[in-house]
Amino acid sequence: MHATHTGRDRGPRNGVDTPTLFATLDAVRSQPDLATFQFRVSNRWVKGTNSRSRIESFTGAGGQHEHKRAYEYDADHPAVLVGGDDGPTPVEFLLHGLAACITAGVANIAAARGVTLTEVTSRIEGDIDLRGILGLSDEVRNGYQRIRATFDIKGDAPAEKLREIVEQSRARSAVFDVLSNGVPVEVAVNAV
Amino acid sequence: MHATHTGRDRGPRNGVDTPTLFATLDAVRSQPDLATFQFRVSNRWVKGTNSRSRIESFTGAGGQHEHKRAYEYDADHPAVLVGGDDGPTPVEFLLHGLAACITAGVANIAAARGVTLTEVTSRIEGDIDLRGILGLSDEVRNGYQRIRATFDIKGDAPAEKLREIVEQSRARSAVFDVLSNGVPVEVAVNAV
Repeated sequence: MHATHTGRDRGPRNGVDTPTLFATLDAVRSQPDLATFQFRVSNRWVKGTNSRSRIESFTGAGGQHEHKRAYEYDADHPAVLVGGDDGPTPVEFLLHGLAACITAGVANIAAARGVTLTEVTSRIEGDIDLRGILGLSDEVRNGYQRIRATFDIKGDAPAEKLREIVEQSRARSAVFDVLSNGVPVEVAVNAV
Repeated sequence: MHATHTGRDRGPRNGVDTPTLFATLDAVRSQPDLATFQFRVSNRWVKGTNSRSRIESFTGAGGQHEHKRAYEYDADHPAVLVGGDDGPTPVEFLLHGLAACITAGVANIAAARGVTLTEVTSRIEGDIDLRGILGLSDEVRNGYQRIRATFDIKGDAPAEKLREIVEQSRARSAVFDVLSNGVPVEVAVNAV
């Protein structure tokens, strides 16, 4: 998720409604509690390592919002890890979130700077040593050891300006921040 | 992603093929480089803040693997943030990954400990102050400020044992580790 207000260009561009985006920024600037959001997901175990999440509503801008439709996503472990492979692995969804977050910001920032984009693609890779989660080594962490993202961007601006747009998006990316810096996560359990 | 080998119960349970899971653990124990995995996602900008990721293959256990099918997921910003709402937000996918990772581990660990589960559900909430990504405050981080997960678990074991299973899953969860502790993320750009 991403936006910017530097170098304002007033027309819609890249499918981004820039005038409304700037109006939203002004509204939040004058009433900061509009910026308080809560996103949420509910999940249900299906079988084996397969579970299904539902994404439906969120709170923010002073109210409750329903997504245009409810989304359901399966996740699973792959066969080589003795799962049913009835969905991507949970860790692959982190990479999707990173790609999508930086890409959304790129579109917003390019529009705000008057740059028309023709193509933005990315590849995200995450390296992980499964001895961590398998409990086979106390020296190996459970999660990714590193993540690499490579963006290819094309548009009607010099290469240097296009690179700056991606860099600004990275610098304001919610997912990049969470993955890079971590966040306090509390886990509570009701057992009956 | 998750597994454990404490308190081995030899039969399949919860849809988990426990004998094969234990055999896999033994194989990795004797040949640790089998544990080296790389997961990957490719993404393409669609329009506005909407992009689409493709999840298809990964490397690990000494080879390249294709998922049973290729998965494609859209992400977008919601209307209230001037997006098209043609998918969940990128940050919601992080919550899905967390729910799915801990739940998969719960199923594996319960099977290994001889516990039959009847229901596992969870709700994950993430609080975020959008003044960070909107560039309206330098004191507000871009990402979630906190994440709360609540699990409800039912099965043929005392509540205390069920709680321990969730706790063990949390302690060995790849996604919990990444979200809690962060990971080095490199972003490279090709602009043409």
